[in-house]
Amino acid sequence: MAKINTHFQKLRAGYLFPEIGKRVRNFAQAHPDARIIRLGIGDVVLPLPAPIVEALKAGADEMAHKQTFQGYGPEQGHEFLREAIAGDYRAQGAAVDADEIFVSDGSKCDTANIQEIFAVDNVVALTDPVYPVYVDTNVMAGRTGDADDSGRYANLVYLPTTAENGFDPPLPTRPVDLIYLCSPNNPTGATMSRSSLERWVAYARREGSVILFDAAYEAFIREPGLVHSIFEIPGSRDVAIEFRSFSKTAGFTGTRCAYSVIPKEVCGRDAGGAPVPLRGLWNRRHTTKFNGVSYPVQRAAAAVFTPEGRRAVQANIDYYMENARIIREGLAAAGYRVHGGQNAPYIWLRVPEGVTSWEFFDRLLAEANVVGTPGSGFGSCGEGYFRLSAFGLRENVEEAVERIRGRLPRA
Amino acid sequence: MAKINTHFQKLRAGYLFPEIGKRVRNFAQAHPDARIIRLGIGDVVLPLPAPIVEALKAGADEMAHKQTFQGYGPEQGHEFLREAIAGDYRAQGAAVDADEIFVSDGSKCDTANIQEIFAVDNVVALTDPVYPVYVDTNVMAGRTGDADDSGRYANLVYLPTTAENGFDPPLPTRPVDLIYLCSPNNPTGATMSRSSLERWVAYARREGSVILFDAAYEAFIREPGLVHSIFEIPGSRDVAIEFRSFSKTAGFTGTRCAYSVIPKEVCGRDAGGAPVPLRGLWNRRHTTKFNGVSYPVQRAAAAVFTPEGRRAVQANIDYYMENARIIREGLAAAGYRVHGGQNAPYIWLRVPEGVTSWEFFDRLLAEANVVGTPGSGFGSCGEGYFRLSAFGLRENVEEAVERIRGRLPRA
Repeated sequence: MAKINTHFQKLRAGYLFPEIGKRVRNFAQAHPDARIIRLGIGDVVLPLPAPIVEALKAGADEMAHKQTFQGYGPEQGHEFLREAIAGDYRAQGAAVDADEIFVSDGSKCDTANIQEIFAVDNVVALTDPVYPVYVDTNVMAGRTGDADDSGRYANLVYLPTTAENGFDPPLPTRPVDLIYLCSPNNPTGATMSRSSLERWVAYARREGSVILFDAAYEAFIREPGLVHSIFEIPGSRDVAIEFRSFSKTAGFTGTRCAYSVIPKEVCGRDAGGAPVPLRGLWNRRHTTKFNGVSYPVQRAAAAVFTPEGRRAVQANIDYYMENARIIREGLAAAGYRVHGGQNAPYIWLRVPEGVTSWEFFDRLLAEANVVGTPGSGFGSCGEGYFRLSAFGLRENVEEAVERIRGRLPRA
Repeated sequence: MAKINTHFQKLRAGYLFPEIGKRVRNFAQAHPDARIIRLGIGDVVLPLPAPIVEALKAGADEMAHKQTFQGYGPEQGHEFLREAIAGDYRAQGAAVDADEIFVSDGSKCDTANIQEIFAVDNVVALTDPVYPVYVDTNVMAGRTGDADDSGRYANLVYLPTTAENGFDPPLPTRPVDLIYLCSPNNPTGATMSRSSLERWVAYARREGSVILFDAAYEAFIREPGLVHSIFEIPGSRDVAIEFRSFSKTAGFTGTRCAYSVIPKEVCGRDAGGAPVPLRGLWNRRHTTKFNGVSYPVQRAAAAVFTPEGRRAVQANIDYYMENARIIREGLAAAGYRVHGGQNAPYIWLRVPEGVTSWEFFDRLLAEANVVGTPGSGFGSCGEGYFRLSAFGLRENVEEAVERIRGRLPRA
């Protein structure tokens, strides 16, 4: 008799974004005339830049001819793309070899799948609030107990990151084995300082932990001197894995390409305590369960690193970060306390007192017809916060801010 | 201290195809003048048909404009593609709804990931020989013990499918919970008869088991009356999941698109024995760990179901099946006993007596400069067999057969 993986039954409600989608659909059906502005899910809206589309089409053309047709590629990604990514790292001051790079179809997939190479009895630490995928995939794998009323799962170590500690994840008070960190952060929009990252790398080296560093938003950092890659931190290659994505950087949410970096040095321990390189384990997972990213998509991704590609991508990032400024300043003028939005495409605001995050979601949708993301969807410490995404068309962002100022001022 | 998933340490050697790749690279380096013909990994060689390339490029063009740009799509696949797939099923006489279809980036991924929704203590049955991904992913998940000297893992139930039983998988002699079946079969090239599938569906209904039916090669069936989908069998919707792929059918090995079908009826049991629909579990897995297939690729996949797409794809299949005929008849003329190749793109031949499958691999590479796949790579019952793929250019297939006849006749 086939038995299900009962860990799935511990999962709370639907995954956050499908739940938002459902509420928005219901509202739209009940109010067909409402012009809804979506600043919720964090999906890009600007078209793919021309040099990238050209590369995508050139890749498609290669598929049309016997001499240039591409079948199975290396599961880890084509050499031309891995080399381009390694070059980008070198330019950022982080030494990464091409054979430490694993190209994939998304950072969601990578950050979801990485836990498979670790034992089920590792203790997992993550920030609260946090990107739900880190939590849910560990629940599914059986690394947690049940959730309590606040939605927190037994056996996970939650690190509160709120305005009270400047959104800087505190070191855990009990030993942990795996640590998910995300900077610039989704959802808070905060970036971790160099000294904070140094503290974490020192912790991981001392405890033998592994840091799973999600840098999907590194391209949105504006301030010089801030850390883009965990591998800028000395000693990190022994203890860290990094994830990056073309999704937000280059508008690939519908095109799909990302990569993870696993240095040759970083190890876990086997049952006898012997070190085992994680890169080999991930390579085994990647080659057994994945068959590489679509060839034309890899060509398109490589075009992101050409001079024209870089310029076009930077122009889009500048556009979104101007949106972020408009949201940040507009909401502040409306009396809201706002965080983030300076080195990240997310604005993290306090909802009015006495209102829950989901109540604010419903109110914003009903009164301003604006969709955001309830902070509590990212964890219990997100309660009382709300995320707005800077990934909108300028006119929509401006109108959303106007509507909020006019119809839902906090002051 | 981060501990690794020690189940990975049970895995034998490298995954089959990387190992073949390594041996071929080593040979090619040592013999730079050898003109190697690859009939090993089963990768297509014909270019993507024009209607499919045009759809891929049209999808790329949509990404270039604000009005038609596509960001995140539904994780399960765009409606236009799911509807086209459902229509294809209906035309084959199998009732499948669009919302039972989950579009993915490969059947390798789907058949690798499906085991996640099941408990670790399920008993897994699979044929021997078998596509290694089914085995390896269950090893990684901890559903097996260690491998013995023949490469068989403890706790797996192996169903020998050899010439002795006409390559028809026998029912297990102990109760099993999950059953991997593949028809047309990789590697043996055999198809399961309707009565055999009826017997398996009856078994699964009686035992409460779930059949994981891999139909990646259904498009290669030539004989009328043979079963293309498990869902042609009455009662199967309660007990079966099906996997299909554009990879071999439409030349998508480098373009990446596939799908799984989970009927609303099929259930597993939770800890209390209550039925839980597998479709909901898979949907949760799919939406949590995957972000949909590249939009232009989904457009290309949908073009496979247009009249022009169908014609072009059928022409390619006919081409490969003519290759299969040439290999089959050529090897038979050279004294080999050959199986498969009539409703599947794989020819499964007996190697000469006293020679192992890997020895034959090395000999074929050294003497005929032809790459095939050792049968033992698919399981201990594959020892003594060898797989040749019909996915080659005609002139290469003809030359490979000539070389084998001239340099390595069996008689």
